[in-house]
Amino acid sequence: MTDLSGSIAEQRLSLCAVLGEDLVLTNSEDMLQYCRDWHGDVTSGAIAVIRPRSTADVQAAVRACRDLGLKIVPQGGNTGLVLGGIPDEPERQVVLTLERMNRIRNIDSDDFSAVVDAGCVLAELKDTIAEKGMFFPLALGAQGSCRIGGNVSTNAGGINVLRYGMTRELVLGLEVVLPDGSVFDGLSTLRKDNRGLDLKQLFIGAEGTLGIITAVSVKLTPYPDNVATALLALNSLDDAITLYRRARRDCCDLMSAFEFMPPLAFTLAREAMPDLPIPLSGDYPAYVLMEISGSGLVDIDDLMHRFLEGVMGDELVVDGTIATSQAQARNLWLIREGMNEGQAKRGAHMRTDISVSLSQLAAFVIDAEAAVAQALPDCISVSYGHVGDGNVHLNVLPPNGSTIEERHEKIYRAKKVVNVVVDKYNGSISAEHGIGRLKREDFEERLSDTKRGLLIAIKKAIDPDLLLNPHCQIDLGADIR
Amino acid sequence: MTDLSGSIAEQRLSLCAVLGEDLVLTNSEDMLQYCRDWHGDVTSGAIAVIRPRSTADVQAAVRACRDLGLKIVPQGGNTGLVLGGIPDEPERQVVLTLERMNRIRNIDSDDFSAVVDAGCVLAELKDTIAEKGMFFPLALGAQGSCRIGGNVSTNAGGINVLRYGMTRELVLGLEVVLPDGSVFDGLSTLRKDNRGLDLKQLFIGAEGTLGIITAVSVKLTPYPDNVATALLALNSLDDAITLYRRARRDCCDLMSAFEFMPPLAFTLAREAMPDLPIPLSGDYPAYVLMEISGSGLVDIDDLMHRFLEGVMGDELVVDGTIATSQAQARNLWLIREGMNEGQAKRGAHMRTDISVSLSQLAAFVIDAEAAVAQALPDCISVSYGHVGDGNVHLNVLPPNGSTIEERHEKIYRAKKVVNVVVDKYNGSISAEHGIGRLKREDFEERLSDTKRGLLIAIKKAIDPDLLLNPHCQIDLGADIR
Repeated sequence: MTDLSGSIAEQRLSLCAVLGEDLVLTNSEDMLQYCRDWHGDVTSGAIAVIRPRSTADVQAAVRACRDLGLKIVPQGGNTGLVLGGIPDEPERQVVLTLERMNRIRNIDSDDFSAVVDAGCVLAELKDTIAEKGMFFPLALGAQGSCRIGGNVSTNAGGINVLRYGMTRELVLGLEVVLPDGSVFDGLSTLRKDNRGLDLKQLFIGAEGTLGIITAVSVKLTPYPDNVATALLALNSLDDAITLYRRARRDCCDLMSAFEFMPPLAFTLAREAMPDLPIPLSGDYPAYVLMEISGSGLVDIDDLMHRFLEGVMGDELVVDGTIATSQAQARNLWLIREGMNEGQAKRGAHMRTDISVSLSQLAAFVIDAEAAVAQALPDCISVSYGHVGDGNVHLNVLPPNGSTIEERHEKIYRAKKVVNVVVDKYNGSISAEHGIGRLKREDFEERLSDTKRGLLIAIKKAIDPDLLLNPHCQIDLGADIR
Repeated sequence: MTDLSGSIAEQRLSLCAVLGEDLVLTNSEDMLQYCRDWHGDVTSGAIAVIRPRSTADVQAAVRACRDLGLKIVPQGGNTGLVLGGIPDEPERQVVLTLERMNRIRNIDSDDFSAVVDAGCVLAELKDTIAEKGMFFPLALGAQGSCRIGGNVSTNAGGINVLRYGMTRELVLGLEVVLPDGSVFDGLSTLRKDNRGLDLKQLFIGAEGTLGIITAVSVKLTPYPDNVATALLALNSLDDAITLYRRARRDCCDLMSAFEFMPPLAFTLAREAMPDLPIPLSGDYPAYVLMEISGSGLVDIDDLMHRFLEGVMGDELVVDGTIATSQAQARNLWLIREGMNEGQAKRGAHMRTDISVSLSQLAAFVIDAEAAVAQALPDCISVSYGHVGDGNVHLNVLPPNGSTIEERHEKIYRAKKVVNVVVDKYNGSISAEHGIGRLKREDFEERLSDTKRGLLIAIKKAIDPDLLLNPHCQIDLGADIR
């Protein structure tokens, strides 16, 4: 059934013959962008990159790869942060990119829903939907490049989760090509549908290990025309969490973002964008970037003003600025984005994506930063993130001027140090980025026998021949054969 | 391994011996309430009713039943509407009720979460949470009796879905006893956790076919102290849908209920509650019961007034009343509840639980009611439900004075007639009630080979011996052996 005897050249010829040359890239140069990760940390290769134009093409590709004994690594916009979308065995894997399947099949404003191909770029999708007065809430740094099928496969998070939920909560239906080449047609837009198990849930967050998502139907909301954005200074992260709780009650369900940042954020942002206006002094211990938004009759500006009046009166917020124009609001967000770029400019560093319970977030950050300071006194911790979700990106920057080897050694040690603290707080080592191949070992180390048993049982049930994305999330090799 | 040779009496003795008499009921009279469905339509029996007090007891019960070759029907508050929680083979099934596991393990207002035993009664849980200033949004007619584990197992809907989502969206974590007796410990309260497949999703809506949910962690929100409730009269169901769309935009995310009712609702409610005040005339073609609510600084009353000013100015709403006290609001909701009781008082009738896309809801109701009128001219259709979710309960009442046989014959025919229209609109025959045993045939008839294949593969992967809730959702007997 599987033909492992063919040389790579023969396999490439076979793929071209079966699928047509239009769908298959085999030249190393052409394949490079699909075989290198988003950060450029890892470059791999592949037997081929298959670029289907339709669901039927995906089915044909699945069957061809099965016949040739090749494994498939599905790929969206290749913006993943955990090596879930690039090959780790170039001599037996192909990349299947959904990039050509980027048609918006239907936007139904009256139904508050849209049906789109998996390869639609998130930002383009959001823009087209906005033209109809509607809003698709998923918002993340990579939105100019990431594709909705990848967002669903990784259950992407981002800055609006506290109000609208993870990608899972935005998905109404899926079309998925299964490992046997058949199509799971679950592309409904029904809001409520309790006909047996909700099969689509299996594929959300599966990182392409159970099926290849080819189309998605999503929930839309009315476009929030009214937005109030404020940058606030506080005396501590603990105060920021108290502020979040109060905002959650005072602003009800209308708060759409609540990001905390350390004072170093301003320095880092300026390193990336020297001309960026920073409207507050960097002398306070903690900052919050907060957004309230809504459509219709609720006076969002008034709500923000009354909220700030209260919390400044109580001295919970000690300084602050409210954007008075879209341009000003954009500049406030550029501080948040610039902080990330600034870290990148300082060279390789440890990035984490941790969640703990909201009650323990401040204690966790203090503990984890102290542990890093003790083990790696010459490194700098930068903790920031989505307070309302208990999600913190605690990054560790090696000293400027470190060699790449020194950096990798410090990153390795910092990760071990931080993970010990994460475990102590029963936190997650992957709040929103997924597991991929990068976090697989750390994930598997922490997996109970029961959970591992369930994961293997499900993989075996749906992809018994391990056709799809092998070694992603868990390495089943030994368990399954 | 399985001992089918033992007599029922021997099996009962064995269960008592292994689990202790305190956990096991075997007397028919004691077992009756666990073996009869909520509507009293079906009365079954069981080898025994097992009443565990702890997760360890559930594990012991699962192992004992496996050893004795008995099948387990898990049960919460036994308020299900599709026969998913009562036995259909009394001579080889036991009921396992979670009713004794009703401890609230923890309410953490600072984390906006709670961890509770599966057997907590929903209304009691909501009340205890409200005492802490927090809110658990799930709200449905049976909340005085249903239990949270059953709500999760059926992915319950109710009146607040348009704002807060189905039960699935309220669940942060689960503890589940698996068919092999092990415990899946997924009882985290993390908001964001992308460590591999989200295994808890499998058990939500599985109606007890894959595991026995023993505890649940749930999301809480601040208690919405401010509520505005209005009963509105409109010229058509189509106008009601237009009104919903406008309310969704004008009131942003603050609308918590939007129920439509026909004029007959008033008559039916009065039949059940003769003294109930009805503040509007029953002369309009359609009515909407609408609620806006929120915590904190948003002026909910003002929002409702400004919204109604606009829609009455545009003559979309032709008459209406806003409750000026909690008692008045309660009376408006009693019309909605009384309508259901009034139908029950008229005797056995067809109940449905349909969803279609919001764009097609009005057309569907007109089509389906016309089809019923043609096929069953002496019956009355009553369509009402949750507009924002595209969820309509289209019920058909046989004429007063019909015998029970006549009623059943008409119910059978009405169901066939309506299901044809549901199929035409690509709707769901179960928006929120689940499949159970009552809708299994209708469900299986509509199942594609691919979906059936996936359902069987998952059941086999997790419950290969078909220990849990056999014949619920699908009948796997022939496929699996």
